Amino acid sequence: MPTKAAPGKPFKPQASSELTLVRQLRARASSLAGPAVRLGIGDDCALLRTRPGEELAVTTDLSIAGRHFRLDWHPPESIGHRALARGLSDLAAMGARPLAAFLSLGLPCELTQPASSKDSSTWMSRFLDGLLALASTHKTPLAGGDLAESPIAVADIVLVGAVPRGRALLRSGARSGDLIYTTGTLGGSSAALKQLEDAQLKDVAKKNGISGLPKDALASHLNPQPRIAQGLWLQRRRAATAALDLSDGLSTDLTRICEESDVGAEVDSALLPIHPGATLEQALNGGEDYELLFTASPSVQVPKSIAGVPSTRIGRILTPRLGRPAITLLTPQGPQPLEPHGWEHFSQH
Amino acid sequence: MPTKAAPGKPFKPQASSELTLVRQLRARASSLAGPAVRLGIGDDCALLRTRPGEELAVTTDLSIAGRHFRLDWHPPESIGHRALARGLSDLAAMGARPLAAFLSLGLPCELTQPASSKDSSTWMSRFLDGLLALASTHKTPLAGGDLAESPIAVADIVLVGAVPRGRALLRSGARSGDLIYTTGTLGGSSAALKQLEDAQLKDVAKKNGISGLPKDALASHLNPQPRIAQGLWLQRRRAATAALDLSDGLSTDLTRICEESDVGAEVDSALLPIHPGATLEQALNGGEDYELLFTASPSVQVPKSIAGVPSTRIGRILTPRLGRPAITLLTPQGPQPLEPHGWEHFSQH
Repeated sequence: MPTKAAPGKPFKPQASSELTLVRQLRARASSLAGPAVRLGIGDDCALLRTRPGEELAVTTDLSIAGRHFRLDWHPPESIGHRALARGLSDLAAMGARPLAAFLSLGLPCELTQPASSKDSSTWMSRFLDGLLALASTHKTPLAGGDLAESPIAVADIVLVGAVPRGRALLRSGARSGDLIYTTGTLGGSSAALKQLEDAQLKDVAKKNGISGLPKDALASHLNPQPRIAQGLWLQRRRAATAALDLSDGLSTDLTRICEESDVGAEVDSALLPIHPGATLEQALNGGEDYELLFTASPSVQVPKSIAGVPSTRIGRILTPRLGRPAITLLTPQGPQPLEPHGWEHFSQH
Repeated sequence: MPTKAAPGKPFKPQASSELTLVRQLRARASSLAGPAVRLGIGDDCALLRTRPGEELAVTTDLSIAGRHFRLDWHPPESIGHRALARGLSDLAAMGARPLAAFLSLGLPCELTQPASSKDSSTWMSRFLDGLLALASTHKTPLAGGDLAESPIAVADIVLVGAVPRGRALLRSGARSGDLIYTTGTLGGSSAALKQLEDAQLKDVAKKNGISGLPKDALASHLNPQPRIAQGLWLQRRRAATAALDLSDGLSTDLTRICEESDVGAEVDSALLPIHPGATLEQALNGGEDYELLFTASPSVQVPKSIAGVPSTRIGRILTPRLGRPAITLLTPQGPQPLEPHGWEHFSQH
C-alpha cells in the first residue's frame, strides 16, 4: 500500500503504472498458490494458515543495488534468485517448512520498462523469473508485498515458515563436546565473485556481461541453493543441537553460535570441504555459501549425505576457557586463533 | 543476515559497526517483548506463536527517502512512526491484532553516527524512538529484521497479526445496499503536507526545519494513528462487510473495494468528515489519512464513535450498471463521476 511524500497527482493508466505492475505480479504469483495461503496478493494483508501445534518462523533480508548485488554484474534472474535464497536459507537454518514469501520491491522506473523495442522483457520481469523459479522449487507461494518507485533498486524479502513448537534449530543449543558439521562445500560463492571481479578488471564483464564467463564456476554465487530439505531432516530427526546458515562466512557465523551458546570451538582446516577452485581463506571468511552449519551430539550418527547433499564434520565444540581464543583453527603449522573475518555492514572497508 | 557483493573484508569493531548496532537494537526491542514472541532478534528467524483457531495476517510496506519521506522535512521520529503506522494500519484494516513487527533498514553510514559532538543521538536512534513509541502504544514487539548500509535511507516494515479463522475484514465483501463509513476525518495529512511544501517554498523549513511550524496542524501527517482498536471492534462484532485503510486517498481506495467486491458506490460530498483546514479535493484524493473505510449492512447499527474515534456514514454501495461510473459523487451541483485520483507509483507525475 504505497503512500507518498508529495500530494496526490492525477492517475494516468499506462503500460507501467503501479496498478498494471501489481496485476501482472498477482497473475504470475497465483500460479504458485499453496494450501497455507488463504488470501494472497490484493488485500491489505495476506492471510496464512498453520497446522495445529506449529509456531511461525519469520525472517527479512534486504538486498540493495551496489551493496548486495551489481546491476552490471548480476543477471536480473540471479538477483531475484539470490534475494529469495537468502530468506529460504534462514528458514532452513531453523528447520522450518516455508509457508509463503513476501517481496517489497523498490525500482527505478526504467527497470519496469522493456529493455528495447525488440525485447519486451523488463528487468523486473526477469528478476521475478529468477525469484519465482526458486519459489516453485521450494513450493513457496509469493503471497504479498509492496511495490514502489525508488532511485535505486532495493528488494526486501520476507519469509514465513512453520516449525513444530519447541523444535526449531536455534543458535544457542551447542554444548561442549558436540561435533561441528557443514553441508556442501565452502568458499564457492566467494571464489566465483573473485572471478567476476577479475573479469570486470579485464573489461570482459563490461563487454559481454557475465555471459562470457563459465556458468558452472559461477553457479554457487549466482544460484546458491538454500538447504530447506537438509534443515527439515535435522529438525525432524532431532539430530542437531544448534544450526545457522553460512551467509557471512564460517569464521563470523561460527562465532555467532559460540556467542549464543556460550561455548568455544575448534575447527580442523584439514577437514574443511573447500569448494573446487576456492582457497582456505575463502572457505573460512567468504560469505554467501548458504550451507548449513550445525552441531550434533557425538552420540548422534550424522550421515555422509543428507537429502542428497554431503555433510562433513569439521570440528568440535569446547568449553570456553579464559586465555583461549573463542575459536581455534587446527593447521599443519599448529593451532591458531580464528577471528571473525566475514562480512559486516557499517565496518571500515 | 546481510551478505555482500564484495569479498569478505576484515572485521573491525567500532562504535557504529553492524554488530554494535544490532546489539543496541536488540536491547531496545527487548523492552517490548510480548507473549506471541517466543524468540526475538538474534537468530536466523524470529519465532511467533498464535492462539488456536487463528490465522495470520501479514503485510509489508516499503518507505524510501525522497519518495515516502524527505530527510530535510520529516523529523526522524516521524519517519519511524509513519513507517510502523503504515503496517499497523494494514492490520487494522483486516481486523487483526498485532503479534510482532519486523524492520529491514538500509541506511547511509552517517545516519548511524552521532549528529554532533554535543548531541550523541543518531538519526537511526531517533527513527527508532518514533517507531518504538508507536509499537509500545499498540503492544507490538519488534521481533527481528535486517540492517544494511545503503546509499539512500530505506525502511521496509513487516507486520504479522492474528485474526480468528474466516473473520478477517476483506475488500471483497461489500454488497449492493451496504452503507459506506469512514473513521476520523479526511484530508488532514494532505493539508499538512501542503503546509510543509509552502513552508519549504518560504524557506522556513530550510532554516528551522519543521519545528517552526504549528505542531497540531501537522500531527495528522507526521503522526497518523493506525485504527487497530476500531478494526478489532468491527471484526469482533462482525459489523463490517468490507474494509481497507485509506492510504492512497478515498477515490482510489474506494475504487479498490468496488473492484474487489464487483460493486459500484455513491459518495455524498455533504457527508464527508473533512479535516479542519483541508479542502474537499484533499479529502477525496489526498492519501495517508490511515482512517478505516468500511461498509456495513443497513441493518447494522454503527455507532457515532468506535473506541473513541468518530465514525461517519459517507455513502452507499450500488449494483454496478453499464454506462454508470463506478463511483458517483453527489455534490450541490448534481452527481458527477469520482475517478481514482489518489497516489500511484510508476504513473506520470
